[in-house]
Amino acid sequence: MSEKIVLTGIKPTGTPHIGNYVGALKPLIEMARSNRTFMFIADLHALNIIHDAAQIRQHTYEIAALLIAMGLDLNNAVLFRQSDIVQVSQLSTMLMNVTPKGLMNRAHSYKAAMDKNMAAGLDTDAGVNMGLYTYPVLMAADILLYGTDIVPCGADQKQHVEFARDIAGYFNHIYGNVFKLPEPVIGQSTGIIPGLDGRKMSKSYDNTIPLLAPENELKKKIMRIITDSKTPDDVKDPDTSTIFQLYTHFATDDEIADFRQKLMTPGMGYGTAKTILFDKINAVLTPVRNEYERLMANPSEIDAILADGAARARAVAAQTYDRVHHAMLG
Amino acid sequence: MSEKIVLTGIKPTGTPHIGNYVGALKPLIEMARSNRTFMFIADLHALNIIHDAAQIRQHTYEIAALLIAMGLDLNNAVLFRQSDIVQVSQLSTMLMNVTPKGLMNRAHSYKAAMDKNMAAGLDTDAGVNMGLYTYPVLMAADILLYGTDIVPCGADQKQHVEFARDIAGYFNHIYGNVFKLPEPVIGQSTGIIPGLDGRKMSKSYDNTIPLLAPENELKKKIMRIITDSKTPDDVKDPDTSTIFQLYTHFATDDEIADFRQKLMTPGMGYGTAKTILFDKINAVLTPVRNEYERLMANPSEIDAILADGAARARAVAAQTYDRVHHAMLG
Repeated sequence: MSEKIVLTGIKPTGTPHIGNYVGALKPLIEMARSNRTFMFIADLHALNIIHDAAQIRQHTYEIAALLIAMGLDLNNAVLFRQSDIVQVSQLSTMLMNVTPKGLMNRAHSYKAAMDKNMAAGLDTDAGVNMGLYTYPVLMAADILLYGTDIVPCGADQKQHVEFARDIAGYFNHIYGNVFKLPEPVIGQSTGIIPGLDGRKMSKSYDNTIPLLAPENELKKKIMRIITDSKTPDDVKDPDTSTIFQLYTHFATDDEIADFRQKLMTPGMGYGTAKTILFDKINAVLTPVRNEYERLMANPSEIDAILADGAARARAVAAQTYDRVHHAMLG
Repeated sequence: MSEKIVLTGIKPTGTPHIGNYVGALKPLIEMARSNRTFMFIADLHALNIIHDAAQIRQHTYEIAALLIAMGLDLNNAVLFRQSDIVQVSQLSTMLMNVTPKGLMNRAHSYKAAMDKNMAAGLDTDAGVNMGLYTYPVLMAADILLYGTDIVPCGADQKQHVEFARDIAGYFNHIYGNVFKLPEPVIGQSTGIIPGLDGRKMSKSYDNTIPLLAPENELKKKIMRIITDSKTPDDVKDPDTSTIFQLYTHFATDDEIADFRQKLMTPGMGYGTAKTILFDKINAVLTPVRNEYERLMANPSEIDAILADGAARARAVAAQTYDRVHHAMLG
């Protein structure tokens, strides 16, 4: 097991789909096999978007159950609710004092909101709340509390880690060497996961394939994948086929080579290809779905795992926070 | 005892002088005689200005010792360190999500910093940190945690209470009626307390009279009060006399009338008048100074009072925070 400490957060703002599973969750599970990993469900970050407590709780259970069902190694991985760690709010409040406002003005998410307002002829800060604006400071607290070495993230999240580094640097400059400086690690891209219409799978395109829906619903969705108009007798191009692209994320190398061959040989129609894809995805997901459903029917089991994770996370967070408190207030 | 809950905070950013004593501390002591009063030493707010933990601790002890020495009624008044209440950071983090950024842009202290930067030809946010910018949200958390009805404050602090009201309103609008709306109460002005040079007593004018300095230092300062050039034989104007103005804040009505008479009658020089003023101030402050010095020599006694206050404050804060947490996250 590596000596590096990895941190990752998942926002409980929606029910995960197949794109999330392939692009984000599977790599996390993999990462946690060989690294001490702090994995938090970012419910405080969700407050900025979702004003319905029941919805946040539901999504929190869903994500926790899914990660456990996917086989998350709970020895290496500390899985917890962000809001269970009181030190994250305390540290965030402290870090405000060493964070230049100019840094927040450069945050991508805030700039995107400003640009949108300006394009609409509105005041630049229209509809922007302080949760959005101060998000990077809370994020820095998340990252710095656990002595994080590495934050695996997409390119769009890299700035958050850079800001956490900057803020840690400002703090250390004033108060001495309290924080370790984290590094962003941009994951090897899994490529774009296509949705039903061939565009990137995304809730905003309404083209997602559900991850944990019942079998018949999964099948119905897969049968709706948009294809070109080639007949069974035509040779098909695997590299532009949504069906094939999705298949590569679930099958073995041999199975993938075999499927590619079949598509490039006259005889198989898209209907058959979709059935092959469905069978494969369903075979991979059925045990995950079963365990997920068992856990969702036993929320106290999820609660116990999250409570255990929170206790382990707090033990580390409390040590870091004590050093910060001592440096700032004695 | 009134049913109203009063809240007041004092920033531990300097050693109090006579102007603070008359204008701020005496009215607070008075207020706490007949109201349930939460009185916190705002060490988290000081972090924005003071980067020296020992200095903040020292000022915290000084203020606590002074209030106790002045006879603060510790039955009605809950005296505590702000940083001992973990819920204040938690609530502040939560309130960010319902606080429009536009509200913060209108904060007096932030606008003052911007104006100064613009006048100096700098970027508007130069030198502004997020502690300064988000100060009103932390302040709102302070105010809202204790079910505060009334915040006695100067006219320059009124906006903080109005912001706390606004933020409470935004929260209640989304999540139901969780917060009581606080009211600012602008204290009956004690008038301007003049300093040694006749201008308002203020550290920035370097014209203060120390509150807790040894007797001989107090005397030396008072003897340095600037007067006009009238001789003992001249009639003097009490209403423009710094000596007389200061006297009114320490003497009884009869003593004040008597002193006024003496100034308006030929015979008494300013040297004698200053001695009368010194004797009066010294007589009032000597028991306070003695008790203050006894407490400062016994910091564990101050610690015990602050710990007791923190426990009482936390009991109330935890109830409020639990309601907020339940509303936002279930």
